[in-house]
Amino acid sequence: MSEDSTSNSFNQVTRRSFLKTSTITLAAGGLISSSYGKQVKGSKLGGLLAANDVVLFQGDSITDAGRSRETASKPNLQAGLGSGYAWLAGAELLVDYPDANLSIYNRGISGNKVHQLAERWQVECLDIKPNVLSILIGVNDFWHALNGNYKGTVEIYEKDYRELLKRTSKALPKTKIIICEPFVLRCGAVNDKWFLEFDKYRAASKKLADEFKAPFVPFQTIFDRALNYAPPAHWAGDGVYPSSSGASLMAHHWLQAAAGGR
Amino acid sequence: MSEDSTSNSFNQVTRRSFLKTSTITLAAGGLISSSYGKQVKGSKLGGLLAANDVVLFQGDSITDAGRSRETASKPNLQAGLGSGYAWLAGAELLVDYPDANLSIYNRGISGNKVHQLAERWQVECLDIKPNVLSILIGVNDFWHALNGNYKGTVEIYEKDYRELLKRTSKALPKTKIIICEPFVLRCGAVNDKWFLEFDKYRAASKKLADEFKAPFVPFQTIFDRALNYAPPAHWAGDGVYPSSSGASLMAHHWLQAAAGGR
Repeated sequence: MSEDSTSNSFNQVTRRSFLKTSTITLAAGGLISSSYGKQVKGSKLGGLLAANDVVLFQGDSITDAGRSRETASKPNLQAGLGSGYAWLAGAELLVDYPDANLSIYNRGISGNKVHQLAERWQVECLDIKPNVLSILIGVNDFWHALNGNYKGTVEIYEKDYRELLKRTSKALPKTKIIICEPFVLRCGAVNDKWFLEFDKYRAASKKLADEFKAPFVPFQTIFDRALNYAPPAHWAGDGVYPSSSGASLMAHHWLQAAAGGR
Repeated sequence: MSEDSTSNSFNQVTRRSFLKTSTITLAAGGLISSSYGKQVKGSKLGGLLAANDVVLFQGDSITDAGRSRETASKPNLQAGLGSGYAWLAGAELLVDYPDANLSIYNRGISGNKVHQLAERWQVECLDIKPNVLSILIGVNDFWHALNGNYKGTVEIYEKDYRELLKRTSKALPKTKIIICEPFVLRCGAVNDKWFLEFDKYRAASKKLADEFKAPFVPFQTIFDRALNYAPPAHWAGDGVYPSSSGASLMAHHWLQAAAGGR
């Protein structure tokens, strides 16, 4: 507990009394206690997650989101997790299940393409031995090729990504892998030159998710829908890097894929 | 659909093929389709929510969050919903259930106390006839009294709030009411003078939730836990108004209370 709450004994007592009585109705129609005390015993994490799991987020700038390299070795801290979807999803899990002993890490690096993940995969994935590994990669594989800064194609992306997943499955056969769909919003740096080619990268990521029986987080579908309620730049000013609203929406859907339910 | 995606037929076709095959494992142990097509038929909204519902967020600045008054009469748009937890929770519902025909409104006004909600309640709540009404009020009832700008007490807060809830239940007996706990972070404007008195306002909100059998969103508990992962100012710079991370965490827990499950 932080020093902010230890001195607040009334607060603590009141909260305990709150928890005894609080109930909510679930989608399934039953009544369960929403008591945080019950919810957090560590054995009832849903979906892919279980108590004591190590969760690793890997990817590019969207995952990196300004994380501190200095504190990267300590799990669960905002500084080391950045300010993007990985932090928000991680924080929501940690707050939901504080007694589950989760260890959440972020090793996203801005600008990365698949082959750059591969170069640092031993230390920054395999050695961490995640129980749950989430990967979001692909926008730079396309974008840097479009800019002429990288001789990549969708075939190379798919081949490199498949190799990375094979290597991971071989080294860590029990690790549950979540594949996140690369996505863009049509604004900022994202213009007509991106289409239809960029869509092939998305399709490749889905193909690989199916091959490896990995849950797939369909971020492009999600953002396409979100355009009904706010313009593209609200979700990602430059079309690539999500705003805080975009990151929140991503975290919500990542949790649906990783932890089940809403 | 926005103009951004209508021209992208490859995108659409690919997405449909994605949806046919995507499955996720739920906490309950069963396999359900995560197909967005299936998820959104409008009849399977969980918890308090059903297809065609009108959802209204009421409160103070934390709910207001810079919403546009000009577009307030149009539901579901970011401009009218602001940039806080109400918008994020609303957007997540809308994206999850685009065919459910939800109408989501925000009528939070910065600086409001309970008696100011009451003054505008006919037009800005009862006339809107919400099926689900979410209320977050109380921090100004305490803060403005602390500053000497309002002659309020916790007894007045509780009495005014109870009257408001009675009036609502009488006028709209079928409306489901969600009561959100007022909260603060110990930083910025929030110092030792706030405690233990502010805790009594939180306790009063919980007491009223129990009296009216309303789901209660325990935001103080949630933020107290969140302090294990980031300092108070990360969640609310002035101790009262949430950051984007704070708003995201609130939206996540509001959805748990309103829509059930994760």
